[in-house]
Amino acid sequence: MREEFQADLNEVSRLLVTMAEAVRAALRKATTALLTADLKSAETVIERDVEVDAIYAQVEAKVADTIARQAPVASDLRMVITALHISADLERMGDLAEHVAKTAQRRHPSPAVPSELRPVFKKMAAAADHMAEKITTVLANPSAELAAELERDDDRMDELERDLFKILLDDDWPYGAETAIDGALLGRFYERYADHAVNVGEQMIYLVTGEPVTSQN
Amino acid sequence: MREEFQADLNEVSRLLVTMAEAVRAALRKATTALLTADLKSAETVIERDVEVDAIYAQVEAKVADTIARQAPVASDLRMVITALHISADLERMGDLAEHVAKTAQRRHPSPAVPSELRPVFKKMAAAADHMAEKITTVLANPSAELAAELERDDDRMDELERDLFKILLDDDWPYGAETAIDGALLGRFYERYADHAVNVGEQMIYLVTGEPVTSQN
Repeated sequence: MREEFQADLNEVSRLLVTMAEAVRAALRKATTALLTADLKSAETVIERDVEVDAIYAQVEAKVADTIARQAPVASDLRMVITALHISADLERMGDLAEHVAKTAQRRHPSPAVPSELRPVFKKMAAAADHMAEKITTVLANPSAELAAELERDDDRMDELERDLFKILLDDDWPYGAETAIDGALLGRFYERYADHAVNVGEQMIYLVTGEPVTSQN
Repeated sequence: MREEFQADLNEVSRLLVTMAEAVRAALRKATTALLTADLKSAETVIERDVEVDAIYAQVEAKVADTIARQAPVASDLRMVITALHISADLERMGDLAEHVAKTAQRRHPSPAVPSELRPVFKKMAAAADHMAEKITTVLANPSAELAAELERDDDRMDELERDLFKILLDDDWPYGAETAIDGALLGRFYERYADHAVNVGEQMIYLVTGEPVTSQN
């Protein structure tokens, strides 16, 4: 029974790692689509979101099956419920990558992001990618310490979002309201992606330590 | 055992109804804050979000306790896991109401919304309130039919968001990029609030019919 439960958990864990890798790849490709007005990349991200949703459904089914067959209690039960929360955050990260791709698609063949905004979006994308990489690592090898770093990584993302808004709200902003709105919404997609990565980190800390972390996201 | 399980479910259900009422009240008050530049209302919404988070934690604890004590399987298990998803959506609706309130607070004593945008925001707020009322009803008295209406209600919200963007993107928009960005983000908060209400409806349909509904949100 114990071994079976462990095997179930391992499978859930593998699914979560696959999902984290998929949403990391999705945002990387969506960023390429955004910064190079690359329609093909945008379409690929949009098409592949169903794959993320499919893994989400698999996690859900596997967790329900595990609870039904193994009737876990205490920390075992905490683990499987935590997996549900994590998969919900990952699923949402996939949606946000898709939103970035859809913005690139909508503006194609024009670039959605004018040249003044490219440096800050490159930095936001790099910060998000770094966080997605970290959660993939933490999901494969649970570490409360590494998970806790995500909160600090997110401070950096918030700082970048403020930098973005400074440019958008500058009196000399030459691109009009539409491009400003696109920039603000895109900024929010990256920032929310990072928030969900922080949530995953908090869930992993809870899993490892048993201490709940209060989320502000 | 069966009666105990039913009593557990009833308690979870009561908590969800309380939570739905709280996030409905939160958005109503946040809208007042937004449309009348009422600082006190904005502050109340922001302060009270912790109460929503507290009920969320109670649902989570009650569900874990129910699974551990009752070891539910099949449709019983589906019910308790569904409750977790619903509470996560309601928690996020509370956050979005808080975001509206924070925008009003940040702009106070100026109104965050210029007069041209007030009619569309009134309509968006009314649509959101109608949907929040509906999920409160459905949570108290599960009905797949009533829950299915939320998808159509959401079409109306999407239409209103398009109306909002038409105004923001008009060549004659006189308020500059900052107010346009605020308007776009506020529109998104209402639209996302409605999306989460649709998710709750889908979860309730799943609960009643056993048929999963694929979410696009």
